Amino acid sequence: MSDPYGMRRSLVLRRRPDGEPRRDDFAMVDEPIPALGEGQVLTRTIFLSIDPYMRGRVADRPSYAPPVAIGGVMTGETVGEVLASSDPSFVPGDIAVGARGWQSHIVSNAAALVKVDRRAGPLGAWLGVLGMPGTTAYSAMLDIGQPKTGETVVVSAASGAVGSVAGQLAKRAGCRVVGVAGGPDKCLWVQETLGFDDCVDHRLSGLVEALREACPNGIDVYFENVGGAVQEAVFRQLNAHARVVMCGMVSQYNKAEFPPGPNLGFVVGKRVRIEGLIVSDKPERFAEWRALAAPWVRDGSLRHRETIVDGLESAPEALREVLRGGNFGKMLVRVGKETA
Amino acid sequence: MSDPYGMRRSLVLRRRPDGEPRRDDFAMVDEPIPALGEGQVLTRTIFLSIDPYMRGRVADRPSYAPPVAIGGVMTGETVGEVLASSDPSFVPGDIAVGARGWQSHIVSNAAALVKVDRRAGPLGAWLGVLGMPGTTAYSAMLDIGQPKTGETVVVSAASGAVGSVAGQLAKRAGCRVVGVAGGPDKCLWVQETLGFDDCVDHRLSGLVEALREACPNGIDVYFENVGGAVQEAVFRQLNAHARVVMCGMVSQYNKAEFPPGPNLGFVVGKRVRIEGLIVSDKPERFAEWRALAAPWVRDGSLRHRETIVDGLESAPEALREVLRGGNFGKMLVRVGKETA
Repeated sequence: MSDPYGMRRSLVLRRRPDGEPRRDDFAMVDEPIPALGEGQVLTRTIFLSIDPYMRGRVADRPSYAPPVAIGGVMTGETVGEVLASSDPSFVPGDIAVGARGWQSHIVSNAAALVKVDRRAGPLGAWLGVLGMPGTTAYSAMLDIGQPKTGETVVVSAASGAVGSVAGQLAKRAGCRVVGVAGGPDKCLWVQETLGFDDCVDHRLSGLVEALREACPNGIDVYFENVGGAVQEAVFRQLNAHARVVMCGMVSQYNKAEFPPGPNLGFVVGKRVRIEGLIVSDKPERFAEWRALAAPWVRDGSLRHRETIVDGLESAPEALREVLRGGNFGKMLVRVGKETA
Repeated sequence: MSDPYGMRRSLVLRRRPDGEPRRDDFAMVDEPIPALGEGQVLTRTIFLSIDPYMRGRVADRPSYAPPVAIGGVMTGETVGEVLASSDPSFVPGDIAVGARGWQSHIVSNAAALVKVDRRAGPLGAWLGVLGMPGTTAYSAMLDIGQPKTGETVVVSAASGAVGSVAGQLAKRAGCRVVGVAGGPDKCLWVQETLGFDDCVDHRLSGLVEALREACPNGIDVYFENVGGAVQEAVFRQLNAHARVVMCGMVSQYNKAEFPPGPNLGFVVGKRVRIEGLIVSDKPERFAEWRALAAPWVRDGSLRHRETIVDGLESAPEALREVLRGGNFGKMLVRVGKETA
């Protein structure tokens, strides 16, 4: 793969995926880097973030954000190094988060970027624990979940970029925290490294019973990332006045038709609150969270983990893996070297 | 039917209904009225309120309140005349709301009763528009629905005791209000008398399309009383940041097995809040609502309607009808004369 200065490589959407995204749903395009307009910044991409929401952007279902057009550059958050800037707030060599695109080089408005300190932790953390996924967990727990000391909190996709932060926040709030994850390795990490009180492997049979054992006092907060059978099992064990944070339902993102959901009769008698969120609705939470969590990442009290694959061309497969649960922690694509 | 002074008649639960409640699921018991203890009040029942929640009390499913025991007196709110009192706050001739039971005469603790002014409106209103159902609508709209001027509010069971108040409150808030009701007579009343902007007859085919026509700007608040096909149709048309007040799902109360519900994927992208309530969780709302709404009932600006059946023995059929939608407005059983 050649990546000459002066040219950039982009992944554009060739067609809307049918089921799982495939490499040939996207096409590689090489073209000259455009000249910078006023207030613009050119970054070379170091890491590209791969997140489940991207499946919605390549579908043509109604959603909270318009889909990527056929032939359009696929969207995604990156961390990169500034190569050139026509805005006084950035100079070459700065590290910037927020440029969007599955691209080797990205031209952004300076206002859309956040400068980060290269020495403040691994660069990938700015896309995961300190970035959009971490902020999502923080905003969701602060604004919807509101876990209280002594309550039981269940987090699905517990080893993922969002779930791992959500559960650690609930532990800091003094809750009993139970994760749900796929497979023994993830469950072990969730318990031993993240410090959850228990973790249920949803791939094993007897999910309802395993949850019941892990949550002897019922469930007060459910942080929903997956939907499907896990949702069904958790909903049956919610306590009165439980809060359900609807963050995602990744188990169905590849499906053409959505399956029915749980009967909602229990919501009345148990006075349950089920509420969805999109992190960009409260943009102020991003800076709040960076300020709060950066010291915790530095001192090691907020744990995180990344799965890193190499090369921009790996992004479609990385998205497929995220939707399958094939990642372990935050999924990143290393697009360029960390240091020039 | 004899009802001698000194005796009372009660309806007790003989067995748990299988499907619709039937008269022989209950038994009549005549027995002497017990002597009053300290702080107790004897009322003779004038009206007994019949409400959908009662189906939960005769089932043995887990619920927010324990079920009525087999052989126990069936519960229900009443308005009655005080015949005797060992508490200084009540004297014979007073009208009291709050005594509970499917009974001709009820012994209550004075603290559980509210004295009402016989001249302040029809007595039945204290069980409907000014009572538990009206308070439910008020609390639900205040605490969950929070309708804002210009929003579209849909209310199911719109001609019922709760729905009729919920919709009129939304009209007062400056909303476009669309009812859903069963049959042309109810729909006409909801529009012409209650002043809703439109009303959709759920018995006709094409519910989704009819709702879409009635709600050209989508739905911002859904006041849920019924569940089933109406819920499914409304959920498809909710706007971003919509609130769903889960007040009841009467369409399934007679069912042994609950059907699946709607897929909840939309809750994330649309940031919907779905929340249940039980009116007794906020007891302060009862007095608030009586104070607020009594003048509106007197001046005719808050409309209400009752279906009244005669005789305590009619209560089981009245409950069956409420669960079928056979009532029109608040369902009451006239157990005794309005004036002695």
